Amino acid sequence: IHEPQSQDSLLSLSVDSEGLQKQIDELSTLSETPAPSVTRILYSEKDVLARRFIKNLMGLSGLSVREDAVGNIFGRWDGDEPELAPVSTGSHIDAIPYSGKYDGVIGVLGAIEAINVLKRSGFKPKRSLEVIMFTSEEPTRFGISCLGSRLLAGSKELAELLKKTVDSQNISFFDAARFAGYANHLQDLTSVFLEKGSYSAFIELHIEQGPILEEEATSIGVVTAIAAPASIKVDFEGSGGHAGAVLMPMRNDAGLAAAELALAVEKFVLESGSIDTVGTVGILELHPGAINSIPSKSHLEIDTRDIDEKRRNVVIEKIHQSALSISENRGVKLSEFKIVNQDPPALSDDLITMAMESACQELNLTFRKMISRAYHDSLFMARISPMGMIFIPCYKGYSHKPEEFAAIEDIANGVRVLALTLAKLSLA
Amino acid sequence: IHEPQSQDSLLSLSVDSEGLQKQIDELSTLSETPAPSVTRILYSEKDVLARRFIKNLMGLSGLSVREDAVGNIFGRWDGDEPELAPVSTGSHIDAIPYSGKYDGVIGVLGAIEAINVLKRSGFKPKRSLEVIMFTSEEPTRFGISCLGSRLLAGSKELAELLKKTVDSQNISFFDAARFAGYANHLQDLTSVFLEKGSYSAFIELHIEQGPILEEEATSIGVVTAIAAPASIKVDFEGSGGHAGAVLMPMRNDAGLAAAELALAVEKFVLESGSIDTVGTVGILELHPGAINSIPSKSHLEIDTRDIDEKRRNVVIEKIHQSALSISENRGVKLSEFKIVNQDPPALSDDLITMAMESACQELNLTFRKMISRAYHDSLFMARISPMGMIFIPCYKGYSHKPEEFAAIEDIANGVRVLALTLAKLSLA
Ligand SMILES: [Mn+2]
Ligand SMILES: [Mn+2]
Ligand SMILES: [Mn+2]
Ligand SMILES: [Mn+2]
Repeated sequence: IHEPQSQDSLLSLSVDSEGLQKQIDELSTLSETPAPSVTRILYSEKDVLARRFIKNLMGLSGLSVREDAVGNIFGRWDGDEPELAPVSTGSHIDAIPYSGKYDGVIGVLGAIEAINVLKRSGFKPKRSLEVIMFTSEEPTRFGISCLGSRLLAGSKELAELLKKTVDSQNISFFDAARFAGYANHLQDLTSVFLEKGSYSAFIELHIEQGPILEEEATSIGVVTAIAAPASIKVDFEGSGGHAGAVLMPMRNDAGLAAAELALAVEKFVLESGSIDTVGTVGILELHPGAINSIPSKSHLEIDTRDIDEKRRNVVIEKIHQSALSISENRGVKLSEFKIVNQDPPALSDDLITMAMESACQELNLTFRKMISRAYHDSLFMARISPMGMIFIPCYKGYSHKPEEFAAIEDIANGVRVLALTLAKLSLA
Repeated sequence: IHEPQSQDSLLSLSVDSEGLQKQIDELSTLSETPAPSVTRILYSEKDVLARRFIKNLMGLSGLSVREDAVGNIFGRWDGDEPELAPVSTGSHIDAIPYSGKYDGVIGVLGAIEAINVLKRSGFKPKRSLEVIMFTSEEPTRFGISCLGSRLLAGSKELAELLKKTVDSQNISFFDAARFAGYANHLQDLTSVFLEKGSYSAFIELHIEQGPILEEEATSIGVVTAIAAPASIKVDFEGSGGHAGAVLMPMRNDAGLAAAELALAVEKFVLESGSIDTVGTVGILELHPGAINSIPSKSHLEIDTRDIDEKRRNVVIEKIHQSALSISENRGVKLSEFKIVNQDPPALSDDLITMAMESACQELNLTFRKMISRAYHDSLFMARISPMGMIFIPCYKGYSHKPEEFAAIEDIANGVRVLALTLAKLSLA
């Protein structure tokens, strides 16, 4: 790897930690629920305000800003050889209901600060550098995770699916996007697709969302692979009726079917015998949802992940068999069992992880290789670009709840590693 | 029992079935959900329209209309001896989400039609006759069943509780009542209380909400007792977190705690060995309710009933023990276990059931004595008045769902029995 003089100055340059913390705090106030929780749903008013905040920061950092038809936001710093594929970095700023202020956010604000670090150092990029804010990494509104990065990676299925996708309020994806100022002139989302090779590298800075780095007091995690997530939607339909009048033998309780399946998910995950297999029922809804009414319908959404795709798929198959037998035993109809996505895992690019490890060494930061158990936009960017991820420690591994926390010193370390890695890759 | 000539003319008089069916159909259109479902929530716009509809019908029948501070509506036909305690009849018109159009409704519209039958026959009441439409028999909005009749029966606890009761949107009971035009000048609901002895009898006409009358092809059920209902609210609190990142042994999943308890309720009810014991989890809610978030909180509402109060209370105690042990085993906090109500059963008055049986015989209608497994406003009216209930058959025993149905011929039979019983009791 080419090592120009300008990199040495990077080692001494420090991150504007105070400014970065202020930005994190300010962004967290653009929330639909009160502090300390953060809720920022795709294309909501708060999301629109947050997007304006990000574009403004990109502009202040001298980046040229572009948005695509679904609101992926790109801020580019042109390199000396702008015809070469740029190096990109980024993450998301949407937040699931009642979550925290670091997930995704530090990979966007931290990326912009990494650009600032490089600019202040007098660094001149050879390959252009690009900061990306991805649209809807979280599946909250339309049930589709990594919506923006999946489309960037060229998912034709998703471009088709979005034509008929509505949220729980029956608002179409396109109407929601138009509310936020996107997708104005088209129903065709193939304009969002990027060709393979559009970037020479993609890097995402993120909190670990697990306890390892904090427990070991290690500064940086160099991610070697991202676990394979799958999500499943299940609907049961029973006969409902009056909670007082319908005797127990006459019941076909769709709610109890859902309860059984939720516990079965846990059982099958534990049966795998692997610590890396996880499964969660995060959504379980009953209809009509009245204390004196037997549930006539139930809806579950199941998330299951593993670093071993085959093992994860065994769990999915057991869940399916269980749903079928519960349906039969309870006389309820299994009206839907839909595997919404079943993505393969992604491996990091060796040259990128090597660049990250060098950066850690040069910055005198402790690091370790590790696996990402959460998925990220990086999982999809890996389809069109060599990919790598930088993890930083977070408090007790907490994420997706208000207690989520990362110390600004750890964030600043992550930004320095990101800046130095971007510099290395820009010159490569 | 005194048998004046005027009663003979009642035997020949027929109900205006066509008009009554039209009223039932019209009232069902005042719904927040599309037909065939009916949803009419306390103090909503549709509820206000439905109340206007009822008061208008009462006026057309020549009744003098009065409303109390919570919107119980009374329509009185003065008897020849208005100083005597009147005979009353009535039911409710609120409807839980996605339910049907007969539950409660036939006991209000049918009562008004019974008055019409008596008027057309030339009958002159001795005791005044009163039709009552009770406020919020269903617990939908504020979690309190039989709100109006509990207050009429003098529940000081409820009058106190309502001062601090809010709905799921955090709208206070009093603000909601004011929206509907009630409770304007006071926070003191003791004005609603009726003294014991205010009525010489109270009778409620209702669909069976069970399959027995239809299966046996019996026209009328004479209710001898109402099963004792209890309702319980449970909250679990776990630690939540990211569905990908938190490994299974680190979890304290409040959703799985709820699922376990729901299945335990079913188990304990079946363990009672009695066909008359029922238990239902009609509400099970997860927080934050995102597919990639481990539930950090869960909320259940449990309904359990029996005609044997002791046996029901054994089930409640088992549910409580189970909630405690689930809490311990899963490391989740049992932050609430609240028995919202645990009402004793009510027995019908012998003189009233005898009057009903005579009426059935005189009208040549088949009848049988039976128990009400559903609770009704009658359960609370029994605290201040001798009480009786008339059941009519309904399709497959269905209730609390759109498929709920009663044939107009069966409804008309119920109205005739009600009219004749009211006449007998008015003269008694
Ligand atoms: Mn997330
Ligand atoms: Mn994230
Ligand atoms: Mn009901
Ligand atoms: Mn009812």
